[in-house]
Amino acid sequence: MVNVTISDLQTPCLLLDERRMMRNVARLKSRLRSLGVPLRPHLKTAKSIDVARRLMESATGPVTVSTLKEAEQFAAEGVTDILYAVGIAPAKLDRVAHLRAKGVDLSIVIDSCEQADAVADKSHATGDAIPVLIEIDSDGHRSGVRPGDALLVEIGRRLHKRGAALRGIMTHAGDSYNCKDVTAIARMAEQERAAAVACAEQLGAAGLPCPVVSVGSTPTAHFATDLSGITEVRAGVFVFFDLVMAGLNVCTLDDIALSVLTSVIGHQRKKGWILVDAGWMAMSRDRGTAKQVVDQGYGVVCDRAGHPFGDLIMSETNQEHGVLAMRKGATALLPDLAVGDLVRIFPNHACATGAQHDRYHVIQDGEGPVTATWPRFSGW
Amino acid sequence: MVNVTISDLQTPCLLLDERRMMRNVARLKSRLRSLGVPLRPHLKTAKSIDVARRLMESATGPVTVSTLKEAEQFAAEGVTDILYAVGIAPAKLDRVAHLRAKGVDLSIVIDSCEQADAVADKSHATGDAIPVLIEIDSDGHRSGVRPGDALLVEIGRRLHKRGAALRGIMTHAGDSYNCKDVTAIARMAEQERAAAVACAEQLGAAGLPCPVVSVGSTPTAHFATDLSGITEVRAGVFVFFDLVMAGLNVCTLDDIALSVLTSVIGHQRKKGWILVDAGWMAMSRDRGTAKQVVDQGYGVVCDRAGHPFGDLIMSETNQEHGVLAMRKGATALLPDLAVGDLVRIFPNHACATGAQHDRYHVIQDGEGPVTATWPRFSGW
Repeated sequence: MVNVTISDLQTPCLLLDERRMMRNVARLKSRLRSLGVPLRPHLKTAKSIDVARRLMESATGPVTVSTLKEAEQFAAEGVTDILYAVGIAPAKLDRVAHLRAKGVDLSIVIDSCEQADAVADKSHATGDAIPVLIEIDSDGHRSGVRPGDALLVEIGRRLHKRGAALRGIMTHAGDSYNCKDVTAIARMAEQERAAAVACAEQLGAAGLPCPVVSVGSTPTAHFATDLSGITEVRAGVFVFFDLVMAGLNVCTLDDIALSVLTSVIGHQRKKGWILVDAGWMAMSRDRGTAKQVVDQGYGVVCDRAGHPFGDLIMSETNQEHGVLAMRKGATALLPDLAVGDLVRIFPNHACATGAQHDRYHVIQDGEGPVTATWPRFSGW
Repeated sequence: MVNVTISDLQTPCLLLDERRMMRNVARLKSRLRSLGVPLRPHLKTAKSIDVARRLMESATGPVTVSTLKEAEQFAAEGVTDILYAVGIAPAKLDRVAHLRAKGVDLSIVIDSCEQADAVADKSHATGDAIPVLIEIDSDGHRSGVRPGDALLVEIGRRLHKRGAALRGIMTHAGDSYNCKDVTAIARMAEQERAAAVACAEQLGAAGLPCPVVSVGSTPTAHFATDLSGITEVRAGVFVFFDLVMAGLNVCTLDDIALSVLTSVIGHQRKKGWILVDAGWMAMSRDRGTAKQVVDQGYGVVCDRAGHPFGDLIMSETNQEHGVLAMRKGATALLPDLAVGDLVRIFPNHACATGAQHDRYHVIQDGEGPVTATWPRFSGW
């Protein structure tokens, strides 16, 4: 790209600081290396082959995805080791079988006998044993079999004896997003590990195979101190980080690699408001920091080089309007920004904000030149 | 389309009940006809030429848009009378001029002297007077000049005397979304009308032209009883309606034309949860009913034919998971839904939920066949 700067971009748009991203990736990889467990990055955050290639251990994976569209898109780019980590709907098994028939080692997730039967039937019909991880509910936050529940072995037996391929178990400590401090996250990481290992042992005691013991969430991946018995760790949002992760002390504001570039379009001076052309369409409606100690509204406002102004946040949004205002209780004055000035907004939730855009404008740091444009996809 | 039913669709996806949509359109048009004012529909909700053609008075408009991408997309389909209703960022004037040079009567919105100067400069440079509406803040909810503020005439004079085309004023009573009942909405409609007319008179008294007096929001458009002095009404979400509008009594659940089709993927029976494959990625993070009398979570759950189960809502979401649970205080039992069953979710906010999808699967009513697929676009 020839001398494109952020001033040349049409607002609102998504900026990605590649240097920060690479630092975030190196941090988690280094941490997991010291714990002796490989990373299976979750690509639902980035939905971009250009980002994926900077995360994966090899050009073929391993990776985690949240939709079959992701599996299909990444498979088309040569990724072959893919875990689709959302409980399978039986009507999706045709697409699973189709990808597997092309040579993709796509594994899926179930937590019920109904799903086990559907997968076994499809495996039988196609003559290809679809590999399955049984989901474990290690923290009560969502789906999965509770550790100790006899259902685990029943699902495993049903799968295994009917010719599908029981590959192991997986769990996601999503409740770690609600932890109050990093000590609590470390405890949650151990709870996640212990539940996964106990379930693997339960399957083993029943004579069932469990080669894969997969755990992960960005918070627990960064604060686990022991991963004995675990064969892989999944994490997604770590690649960009965001305000929710900063609020959990998993990262600092200086680690956030994603921001929305927006233009000032007006003022309501008596109210202390600056209006910009990024609303919830550009930021998403995510208000993930609302339940944290510091509520960041719809995002933290930075200057065009990415330095936070301090207590200036995006306090309200409409579809294509954002209101910037000083945080309640702030003593600093509203910065002097003119119509047409550019600012950047750190998002609450990188997965949600990224999903509102179809490309990343890549910068290396600060407001330096735009060095690349990376497409991202969406849909199912 | 040959015999496609909703059972053939991959979930999650967006369903549009065309009959309900046409009924909603007829209702507002009939109402405005009786008040003697034309509709300039806001296409930010639908972002689809197929929907637009069912709303517009003619193939060329008039329409309202929230992004220049919308203006460009609809212009490419032959729409020529377009109001871009978000305060202009000066860096966008090149795209405005480019569209106008192609014969599109694109008008823009400003509320400051800085913008007036930028528009006047661009008009002078291109020899094409860009038509401008000055935005009025009739309810204190967002941008615009307050009625009675001398700034209005100053902006108008600056524009007019430097050769840009002052076309009139516009206001949007967005605060009507916070009204407690339809009486309050009717009062808000009169406040919106009165503010607009007063500002038009203020410009007239200063010797400035004001041929266009544009008002509108879906609530006020439906409950205004007098639109004297108004030349056009804008509204967007009326075409689909949603739970926020139903919570305001602007419509009923039976009017909601948009729903997300999703598959059951599991249960947490002890908790009374049903898990589905539509999370916030399919629904959006919009929680617009959270501040209403009845909080609908992330949406109201319907059977596959679109009939609400009663007190079953989507209580929580993750990226690709939704949790269905009975509303707090409900006495009915959780419906018996098996893995693979299809359900439909009415959204809080049609604009936000629609934006998560790239197409509409059109049905005529209930679960009848899918009669068409209409693409929708996104971005800026």
